Amino acid sequence: MSTPPFPASVYASRLTRAAALAADAGLDAVVVGPGPDLQYLLGVEGDTIERLTALVLTPDARATIVVPRMELAKIRSTAAGELGLTIADWVDGEDPYALVLAAAGEVQRVGVSDALPALHVVPIAERLGVRVELATPVLREGRMIKDDAEIAELRRAGAAIDAVHRRVPEWLRAGRTEREVAGDIAAAIVEEGHRTVEFVIVGSGPNGADPHHEVSDRVIEEGDIVVVDIGGAVPSGYNSDSTRTYVVGDPGAEEAERIAVLVRAQQAAVDAVRPGATAAEVDAAARTVLAEAGLGEAFLHRTGHGIGVSVHEEPYIAPGNGLVLRPGMAFSIEPGIYFPGRWGARIEDIVIVTDTGAERVNLAPHALVSAARQ
Amino acid sequence: MSTPPFPASVYASRLTRAAALAADAGLDAVVVGPGPDLQYLLGVEGDTIERLTALVLTPDARATIVVPRMELAKIRSTAAGELGLTIADWVDGEDPYALVLAAAGEVQRVGVSDALPALHVVPIAERLGVRVELATPVLREGRMIKDDAEIAELRRAGAAIDAVHRRVPEWLRAGRTEREVAGDIAAAIVEEGHRTVEFVIVGSGPNGADPHHEVSDRVIEEGDIVVVDIGGAVPSGYNSDSTRTYVVGDPGAEEAERIAVLVRAQQAAVDAVRPGATAAEVDAAARTVLAEAGLGEAFLHRTGHGIGVSVHEEPYIAPGNGLVLRPGMAFSIEPGIYFPGRWGARIEDIVIVTDTGAERVNLAPHALVSAARQ
Repeated sequence: MSTPPFPASVYASRLTRAAALAADAGLDAVVVGPGPDLQYLLGVEGDTIERLTALVLTPDARATIVVPRMELAKIRSTAAGELGLTIADWVDGEDPYALVLAAAGEVQRVGVSDALPALHVVPIAERLGVRVELATPVLREGRMIKDDAEIAELRRAGAAIDAVHRRVPEWLRAGRTEREVAGDIAAAIVEEGHRTVEFVIVGSGPNGADPHHEVSDRVIEEGDIVVVDIGGAVPSGYNSDSTRTYVVGDPGAEEAERIAVLVRAQQAAVDAVRPGATAAEVDAAARTVLAEAGLGEAFLHRTGHGIGVSVHEEPYIAPGNGLVLRPGMAFSIEPGIYFPGRWGARIEDIVIVTDTGAERVNLAPHALVSAARQ
Repeated sequence: MSTPPFPASVYASRLTRAAALAADAGLDAVVVGPGPDLQYLLGVEGDTIERLTALVLTPDARATIVVPRMELAKIRSTAAGELGLTIADWVDGEDPYALVLAAAGEVQRVGVSDALPALHVVPIAERLGVRVELATPVLREGRMIKDDAEIAELRRAGAAIDAVHRRVPEWLRAGRTEREVAGDIAAAIVEEGHRTVEFVIVGSGPNGADPHHEVSDRVIEEGDIVVVDIGGAVPSGYNSDSTRTYVVGDPGAEEAERIAVLVRAQQAAVDAVRPGATAAEVDAAARTVLAEAGLGEAFLHRTGHGIGVSVHEEPYIAPGNGLVLRPGMAFSIEPGIYFPGRWGARIEDIVIVTDTGAERVNLAPHALVSAARQ
């Protein structure tokens, strides 16, 4: 656990806002377990799932944190401590759900955070005598619109992962395995300022054609196209996520041409981002460029996903999503093209919606990067 | 996602057993979401939480896997494909919970896996018209007792993390930061055969006194005691987890003496492991050695936790846990001593209960290891 990245006043206003939204939604209490919602509301991560840590928030903005005593010092070092929240601690053998009941009081309608596992959802529902509902509408709104301090953290994460991408050509050589390259990248993710390595995808040659490939013992060959999709969390908990496509040596004419189209498709989607546009319109912008070049069938997934204290969150940039973009939203733009059994490519930046368009936080070169010959 | 590590017949018998236990428990259906239970039952990881992937198992051993269409190829490459399970796939815009209902049929009592997030628990309960309960009793039993193939994977993971620990003295030098050392370790975790880096804790000097410390920018000094607690998952998904304590240069007399006691305490707990002993007895064995040396107050946590496809699972080796050990159980033995503001130490091995005692899977030297002077 790291120190909360923002002053306590930031968390105080997030709590007040969530309580007001809970009141609007007619909820008598909201129970938030470890996960991105708790990290957003209190700067608290909570790293074990088997022992209950939970924030219990009521519409009058009373907030109680239920926490195992062994985590108490950690909780006190977060905003929960500074804000003077009621702390209800417990030790093994005691019943933490009784503490949730005491904090919530008499309730009819209780919302829980998306990430709360069944392990706790079931006993909370039993103990409170209610059928719980999802608190998503209350919790999503705040997380989706990033404030200036959060945007600064996303920029910091973007710069850190850009620094790693700029070093990838040093490590990508014919004769090395994907796993060896991934090891160098993992080390660099930490060296360049991340606290955690969230994922390292190195998809060389045919492995690049599977958008779900992670890493393997395949030996990289001269001429391979290599998809490198990497990310981690900086100390504040905000995430980076960026993909670049490399070639070992020189690309074939077909690869070079198709990847140039992909770079244009990615740019078109970035250009489509502005307040008032829908998520679907941004998705369509990338899709149209690829379709016009005869590559529509090769683009298998949505164009992007929101990012913040979690790697995947709202808004999702996908066909059919009529969500209207607003300043402060942050998400990936990552079209890809996949040719099964042969090769694939993907280009991904995180962008933030500004008052007039989009700010990219990833600035490493987008075009196909050639790794040095041996 | 990796290929399932075991033949399909292994998963077939795990499913049959879980169905029989569900029948015994009077459940009409069990819904298992992504997480260690699904990994255990089908070798399926399922890496997104926002789209439902779930196994629906009924007491007559019918099994259906509900899965987003984009994950279909991946699911077919797992035991789910080989076993001819019913596959119910869906695309964005369709209702996956209707597929759960169709698979479960008319139900009164439905169990869900511990890890299933509220995001899915709430709509499943609504759609099935039941108050769900936890399927823990049905699912825990199988996972807790490892078979020979699983034990082989835990040995493989143990050897891989041992290889990393043997290299730690190369990287641990005065003048480097914890983060730099952690970067080298993260790379080596991947190089030595893990698929993922689950955690890298480097606690130097006073940071070692906090059992929850992960890594920081603190510069390591000559004479520092350094706790290194590391682990990852090997390609089959089974985890390693091992801690060793290092000194940069030479230790002080107090540190050397206390760490020698800790090594004896860890050995005493390992010696206490045998079928028929309780988890609490193993915990007490370590605690007694430390208490007799006046270090009882310095040992702040439980002695260990189970391990397998998850890093923390049953059985927990803790005071008050009367669980009786049986052959095939696998868990950590990791007593530690913590002196706030000064230093700390911890020694951790994974052990497997044999017919007569315990097998350690971690064999790197237990005593305080001195990293070379600069």
